[in-house]
Amino acid sequence: MSLIRAQQAGGECESFMKEWQIEKSIDADEFVNNFEAFFFDCDGVLWRGNEVIQGAVEVINKLVKANKQIYFITNNSIKSRATLLEKFHQLGFGLTKKENIICTSYAIAKYFVEKEEYKSGKKKIYVIGEKGICEELDCCNLLWLGSYHDNEKKVVIKDDLEISVDKNVGAVVVAIDFNINYYKIQYAHLCINELDAEFIVSNKDATANFTSKQKWAGTGSVVASVEAVSLKKPTVLGKPNLFMIENVLKDLNIDPSKVVMVGDRLDTDISFAKNCNIKSVLVSSGVTDANIYLNHNHLNIQPDYFMKSIADFL
Amino acid sequence: MSLIRAQQAGGECESFMKEWQIEKSIDADEFVNNFEAFFFDCDGVLWRGNEVIQGAVEVINKLVKANKQIYFITNNSIKSRATLLEKFHQLGFGLTKKENIICTSYAIAKYFVEKEEYKSGKKKIYVIGEKGICEELDCCNLLWLGSYHDNEKKVVIKDDLEISVDKNVGAVVVAIDFNINYYKIQYAHLCINELDAEFIVSNKDATANFTSKQKWAGTGSVVASVEAVSLKKPTVLGKPNLFMIENVLKDLNIDPSKVVMVGDRLDTDISFAKNCNIKSVLVSSGVTDANIYLNHNHLNIQPDYFMKSIADFL
Repeated sequence: MSLIRAQQAGGECESFMKEWQIEKSIDADEFVNNFEAFFFDCDGVLWRGNEVIQGAVEVINKLVKANKQIYFITNNSIKSRATLLEKFHQLGFGLTKKENIICTSYAIAKYFVEKEEYKSGKKKIYVIGEKGICEELDCCNLLWLGSYHDNEKKVVIKDDLEISVDKNVGAVVVAIDFNINYYKIQYAHLCINELDAEFIVSNKDATANFTSKQKWAGTGSVVASVEAVSLKKPTVLGKPNLFMIENVLKDLNIDPSKVVMVGDRLDTDISFAKNCNIKSVLVSSGVTDANIYLNHNHLNIQPDYFMKSIADFL
Repeated sequence: MSLIRAQQAGGECESFMKEWQIEKSIDADEFVNNFEAFFFDCDGVLWRGNEVIQGAVEVINKLVKANKQIYFITNNSIKSRATLLEKFHQLGFGLTKKENIICTSYAIAKYFVEKEEYKSGKKKIYVIGEKGICEELDCCNLLWLGSYHDNEKKVVIKDDLEISVDKNVGAVVVAIDFNINYYKIQYAHLCINELDAEFIVSNKDATANFTSKQKWAGTGSVVASVEAVSLKKPTVLGKPNLFMIENVLKDLNIDPSKVVMVGDRLDTDISFAKNCNIKSVLVSSGVTDANIYLNHNHLNIQPDYFMKSIADFL
C-alpha cells in the first residue's frame, strides 16, 4: 500500500502517512501513466453535497485530455442519470457525457426493463426511495407505486388495522429515502414475505455525503430496516456488486491491470474494485477517515493505494 | 421435541404434528405438574393486538390457583409497566400484579437509573421509541429527548443543512417507533458516532403482533436502521438477553429444571430460555409458523416442546 502524492507534496504528506500507517509513496504522474481507464465514485471523491472538492474538475479535464477512459460509478439513487448529468455540468465537469455516468437509479430501471412481466406492465414495483428512481422507471414505462406517494402515510395501531397491498407487486426496491416511515417498511415487508415479491436494493452504503456539513446515515440504514424483517436476502445492484458495470467491462476491451477505481468507501468502492479485479485508490476526502480505516475496518478491506484527495493527481 | 396436548385432543393433533415434523406428544396436565414457575411471553401467546387468544385467561387462572409462580416477560416497549397492567386487567387477566410484568420499557429505565450520570441529570437519553419508554424514564426522573417530539421532523437535503445534537446526550435508546423517520435515524447516528453515546436497544424481534390482522414489522426493523450506520454494537436489554430477568432469577430460588418459558419466537423467546438454562415451549399462535420454523430457522433454534396454543394447558 502506497500513498499517491502530487509532485509538489511536502511535509504534510509525511504526517498523513504516519496517521494512516502508510509506508511508501509514489509520484502521481508516474501512477497516471500506468493506467488507461479510471473509474470514479462521486460523493466524497468529486464533491461533498454540492461543494466540489478542490482540484476535482482540473483532474478530470487533465485525464480526459490525456485520452484516458473515464466512468463515474456511483451508488447514488436520488437522481436520475439525466439529472445527475446536469449536476456534473453545473459543478464545472463540462466534459462529462451521460454514457459515462452509471448510477443505481439507472441500474434499477435497467434490471426491470429486461424482464418481460415488468416490461409488459403485468407486474408492478413498490419503491422505497427518492424521485430519481421513479423518473428512471417512468422513462422505461415501468409501473411503480410507493416512494413520495407514501411520504405522509401514518400507522396508528388499533386492533382492526391492517395494511392491504396491491397484489400485482412483483418486486420491492429499497434505496435511500429521506421520507422513510413505518408504513413503507410494513408495506415492503408484506410484499416480500406475503406476496413473495423480489427484494432489490440500490446499495448498502452505511453513510453518505449528502451535504458537505456532516456525515449522513446512508442507503444502508434504510435497506437494513426492510432486510431485518425479510425472510429473503436482497439482490444488491450497486457497488460492490458488478451488475451496473458488466456491460461497460465487456465493452472497454482494456486489460484489467490498466483500470483503477478511485473511491472513498471500503465496503463498496474498494470491495467493488476487488470484485472487478482492478486496482483501487482510497481517498480520505469522503466518509472513511483514519479511525474508521484502522479501527473499524472489520472486514479488513485494503486498498492498493491511498490519496489525501483527488487533487493529488494534479 | 414433543407436542404438549390437551387431554381431549383429537385428530387435529396428528395433522399438526405432521406439519411441524414432531414425533412425540405428552399430556398437558403431566407437563404442568413437572414445573413450579412459568415465564410467558405476551404478544402471540396471551393475545394478538387486543384480541385474547382463546383459553389464555383460564390457563393463567388455573396456574395461579395451582400456586405456580408466573412472570410475564415481554419485549414490549410501547407501554409502561403501569399501562401494561391495565391491559392485562382489561383483557380479563385479573390476577396479574405489576411485579409479575417485566417489559423492556421498564428495563430501559432500570438500566439508566442505576448510573449516576443519568440519575443526577448530567447526561440525557435520546429516544427512538414510543410513549411507554418516556413514561418509565419520567417515573425515574431521567432526562430524555426525541421520541414523539421528533415525529414531524423532516430532512430536506440542501447543501448548508446540518442537524445539531444536544452535547449532553450520553445514550441513544432504540425501540419500536411507529413514527420512525430519517431525522431520528440521523440524530441517533450523530450521537452514537460523533458524541460516542451508548447504544441501547429494547430488542431485535423482526416481527410482532401489534394487531391481530397481520404480522407487523417489529422492533428489529427500527433497530437495524440505526445499527447499520453505527460503528458500535448495541446493548440489547430484552430477550434473548437476561438483563430484564437477572434479579427475578436470583430471587426465585427454584431449581432451573422446574422453570419453563412459553413463547412464540425462536430468536428471542426460545433463545432466551436457553440462555436462562430453562426448558422452552414454542406456541404456534404467534409469529412463528411451520414454514418459518422448518425453512427459515437459520440459527437452528430448537424448542424443547411445542403447543398449538396456550389453550392446550387446559
